[in-house]
Amino acid sequence: MELGMIGLGRMGAAMAERLARGGHRVLGFDPLPSAREAAATRGVEAVDALPALTAALAAPRTLWLMVPAAAVDATIEALLPHLAPGDRVIDGGNSHYRDSQRRAQALAARGLRFVDVGTSGGVWGLREGYCLMAGGEADDIAAIRPLLQTLAPAPDRGWAHVGPIGAGHFVKMVHNGIEYGLMQAYAEGFALLQRKEALVPDLAQVAELWRHGSVVRSWLLDLTAGALEANPALDGIAPYVEDSGEGRWTLAEAIEADLSTPVIALSLLQRLRSRETDPFGEKLLAAMRAAFGGHPIRPAGGSGAR
Amino acid sequence: MELGMIGLGRMGAAMAERLARGGHRVLGFDPLPSAREAAATRGVEAVDALPALTAALAAPRTLWLMVPAAAVDATIEALLPHLAPGDRVIDGGNSHYRDSQRRAQALAARGLRFVDVGTSGGVWGLREGYCLMAGGEADDIAAIRPLLQTLAPAPDRGWAHVGPIGAGHFVKMVHNGIEYGLMQAYAEGFALLQRKEALVPDLAQVAELWRHGSVVRSWLLDLTAGALEANPALDGIAPYVEDSGEGRWTLAEAIEADLSTPVIALSLLQRLRSRETDPFGEKLLAAMRAAFGGHPIRPAGGSGAR
Amino acid sequence: MELGMIGLGRMGAAMAERLARGGHRVLGFDPLPSAREAAATRGVEAVDALPALTAALAAPRTLWLMVPAAAVDATIEALLPHLAPGDRVIDGGNSHYRDSQRRAQALAARGLRFVDVGTSGGVWGLREGYCLMAGGEADDIAAIRPLLQTLAPAPDRGWAHVGPIGAGHFVKMVHNGIEYGLMQAYAEGFALLQRKEALVPDLAQVAELWRHGSVVRSWLLDLTAGALEANPALDGIAPYVEDSGEGRWTLAEAIEADLSTPVIALSLLQRLRSRETDPFGEKLLAAMRAAFGGHPIRPAGGSGAR
Amino acid sequence: MELGMIGLGRMGAAMAERLARGGHRVLGFDPLPSAREAAATRGVEAVDALPALTAALAAPRTLWLMVPAAAVDATIEALLPHLAPGDRVIDGGNSHYRDSQRRAQALAARGLRFVDVGTSGGVWGLREGYCLMAGGEADDIAAIRPLLQTLAPAPDRGWAHVGPIGAGHFVKMVHNGIEYGLMQAYAEGFALLQRKEALVPDLAQVAELWRHGSVVRSWLLDLTAGALEANPALDGIAPYVEDSGEGRWTLAEAIEADLSTPVIALSLLQRLRSRETDPFGEKLLAAMRAAFGGHPIRPAGGSGAR
Repeated sequence: MELGMIGLGRMGAAMAERLARGGHRVLGFDPLPSAREAAATRGVEAVDALPALTAALAAPRTLWLMVPAAAVDATIEALLPHLAPGDRVIDGGNSHYRDSQRRAQALAARGLRFVDVGTSGGVWGLREGYCLMAGGEADDIAAIRPLLQTLAPAPDRGWAHVGPIGAGHFVKMVHNGIEYGLMQAYAEGFALLQRKEALVPDLAQVAELWRHGSVVRSWLLDLTAGALEANPALDGIAPYVEDSGEGRWTLAEAIEADLSTPVIALSLLQRLRSRETDPFGEKLLAAMRAAFGGHPIRPAGGSGAR
Repeated sequence: MELGMIGLGRMGAAMAERLARGGHRVLGFDPLPSAREAAATRGVEAVDALPALTAALAAPRTLWLMVPAAAVDATIEALLPHLAPGDRVIDGGNSHYRDSQRRAQALAARGLRFVDVGTSGGVWGLREGYCLMAGGEADDIAAIRPLLQTLAPAPDRGWAHVGPIGAGHFVKMVHNGIEYGLMQAYAEGFALLQRKEALVPDLAQVAELWRHGSVVRSWLLDLTAGALEANPALDGIAPYVEDSGEGRWTLAEAIEADLSTPVIALSLLQRLRSRETDPFGEKLLAAMRAAFGGHPIRPAGGSGAR
Repeated sequence: MELGMIGLGRMGAAMAERLARGGHRVLGFDPLPSAREAAATRGVEAVDALPALTAALAAPRTLWLMVPAAAVDATIEALLPHLAPGDRVIDGGNSHYRDSQRRAQALAARGLRFVDVGTSGGVWGLREGYCLMAGGEADDIAAIRPLLQTLAPAPDRGWAHVGPIGAGHFVKMVHNGIEYGLMQAYAEGFALLQRKEALVPDLAQVAELWRHGSVVRSWLLDLTAGALEANPALDGIAPYVEDSGEGRWTLAEAIEADLSTPVIALSLLQRLRSRETDPFGEKLLAAMRAAFGGHPIRPAGGSGAR
Repeated sequence: MELGMIGLGRMGAAMAERLARGGHRVLGFDPLPSAREAAATRGVEAVDALPALTAALAAPRTLWLMVPAAAVDATIEALLPHLAPGDRVIDGGNSHYRDSQRRAQALAARGLRFVDVGTSGGVWGLREGYCLMAGGEADDIAAIRPLLQTLAPAPDRGWAHVGPIGAGHFVKMVHNGIEYGLMQAYAEGFALLQRKEALVPDLAQVAELWRHGSVVRSWLLDLTAGALEANPALDGIAPYVEDSGEGRWTLAEAIEADLSTPVIALSLLQRLRSRETDPFGEKLLAAMRAAFGGHPIRPAGGSGAR
């Protein structure tokens, strides 16, 4: 079928390419000329403005957004004057599910349709297919089914209609919360192995070994094995871990639901801690120990300090 | 080759069967007659006493122990009078790596060899093969290589010589610590989905979906999908989670190495909490809130209480 | 000086009484007749409607709100028609500091003043005085200084102007977050002592002992000692712990500030866990263990189960 | 009464001085000449060898050990030849309670008495008195009662006989576990306030304020207020927090008792984390994010890195 892909960054361009390879007609737009040019080499008919995109698509249009969560409202607003009732907006990015519910309502008031598609698979999706978690009404999902079947690893698996509008982004949010916990579990385990170098000298070997037959085998372990194979000591990599928001949302949702999720919580907090350069709380702990017990304080910036 | 399998329980019997199917001559012993009888139907020459086992094996003998960690010392002691220099004891169970180091030393003093083989794969190992983490000396590993190749998912992968004596059990211990964290991460995520039944009605569908193309795909997720498919509401299952020791050891090792492992720690503590029936600390919190703020206390045993 | 106290519940009535005892003229309102009647016996001139309250106060009026956070907006809205420029609204409850900032702005547009006063001390404040954390403009704090001096444990301590509007409630929010952590620390320690009854038979004795000279002495420990003295086994108290919101806010603020606060996080999560009756996540863990390792599942509702 | 204080370090010297001031005859020994000289100026009869100490005391002797936990066994061994049945050894340091139980048994076999006295109060104990948690037999506690009464803040409070041998050190261990949690709770709260400098500019003011009438008032807060008053930005203090062992023991005991203590666990882990300079686990997280999502890695050592 025919669609317009808005946002031709890392994710959007690869998805557009997979769709084009799958036989769909893919028009694309990105504000960055370089992104448009790159997409053009990957089977995408890239246009240089939103109105040109909508004009080139036959009604009812299908517009797939792969833009940062913070840019979705502005993108929809820019689109609105160029859409007609019956057109369909798909948000495939990492939007908060409540924003999706709000947006769907606003679009519905104008006769426009909305589907939220949580998308997992990262940079490997182009080759291996994406896992697609779709929220929306049944006829909308049916309408975009050819796209989901092409993007997924196989036509009959790796995509599903998981619930009403918002459900797709909710499921993706929880997916990412779990992902944080899985990553932290592996990170802690390998960090412990790394402390025992005399006993277990080869972490890459262990990671590769566990991939076969062990209880902890997983795709994240496959990647970990690759990363350790390529750079066994992780040389040149700062212990600085970003978070892109879904972990925070997951924890906030859990707490709002009165649910205790200690591992997701700590996985997030550990990332925050990784970005501290001079944690005040730990300085205060050292000051308190000195105050009550006379324990020595390590001077800031001294050798051997962090 | 030829070996004696000591311990024909859930793990031992299945491993013996896989070895027998692989063409090895497998003698077996278990103190339980029923275990011996069952093993006999699975290709194992089951004998009813340890001396009979050692007598039936040609020197140098290979004895593979699959007994509970608490029974290893007694088993080795019972074996000792019947072993001869050059015989080889393999501990395939979940022993603490320091116990393995100690045992290896004691056996070496009598001219006996020792290999520790951390074994993962659970009840699926018979069919899919086991992941085997071997610690020991190179010539001992070489000697039992045919067994490792048969037990592993494939002759060239799923087994490895990860380090000197103790390394096998150390790597297996860390493996299990990671496993706790992975399991807890999934448990928290699905628990959050379960709170939003109106939005995401079908957890089994989500688990199945994530198996294909998502970042969180794993073997544990495969099993989770199966469990949720079979029993979507987990009816009849008490929220009571045992731990078999390796999680505790992993945390203790991490702390001894001055390493912070919050996710492994919390995964273990959550299991302990699951087994509490009347947690004193939480009663005290309620009492404290009443004492300073006049907040009402919920009477014990009242309806709606836990 | 003269003030109107709106909200004569547990906190409001006691504060009104302390103010009246301190020589201030205290008018009071509460929608509950019983609350008004009780307050009337404690030195408060209780009136039965907000207009009557404002009419009885000379301009510029001082109105001190001690109502639930959820009722503040409605209370202010009901007050507005009866206020005149220069009147002063003090929110002494546990409002979110951002709500206070918003309300102050709305009130300022009408020439009305706002002060947020975080108030700690619980049911003991009447006798021991309250700790008051005031946010607002300097002249407003100066104007209500006589009230703060009477409410505090002593005229010159236990109250402070901690920052601009919102700062009072922010500091109180953090105060409560810390309180959660302190409480959980004591709860865990006493729970561990309770497990070793043969070694340490008398928890109340230990709590009382620690009050004198130990590093962990505190007011919360004083209360804990009293609670354990009165009910050593905490008989009749369900392990069910409410939270009143500030702990959630504290954690959310910390995360928004990219700050790792594991103890505040876990203190909150533990309370949530205390209120679970049939935790799905822990059932799933049991199901997963059965699925990969054949570990037995404890049947729900069985004896010995939780 | 008369006693020999062995170990005249920070704690031992101050306790010896308080005992001497209280009218007891205090002989003292320390292997360091400078410690002996300093003690001599504080009312202690310092001798330069253990045999001289025991020779100078009348039987039955009372020997109070204030030495590092790691030195207790060697100290007792050095004492043994010079002791006679009926002599009494008091361990006032931070020994593990199981070591105390073991030592008491060994001493009992020689007719020697043992008391374990957990001691809290830090450098302030000299002036304010120590909190003393005594484990042992009733007649031994009765015999040293005059010493406990002098060391405690007051003769009738701040000391107690909490249980049989080992109970004193067990209670002290739990005390320190709680202490970790309390400290971490304050540290997190002040760290959050510090992030909002524009809203709450003066942390020392807040700490001082909370000391009066608030729910979080405590002795640790008193010290925190002093530390922040003296050095509001904690300049020159590295965020490096030692632990002296009791926190580890507390967590290990809790886990052995199947008790979940998340706040004590995380307080300990946070200290371990504070001492990491290049955490491998966090580097691996960054590597994993790059591997699956193409997320950029921050180069090690770059500006802005930790």
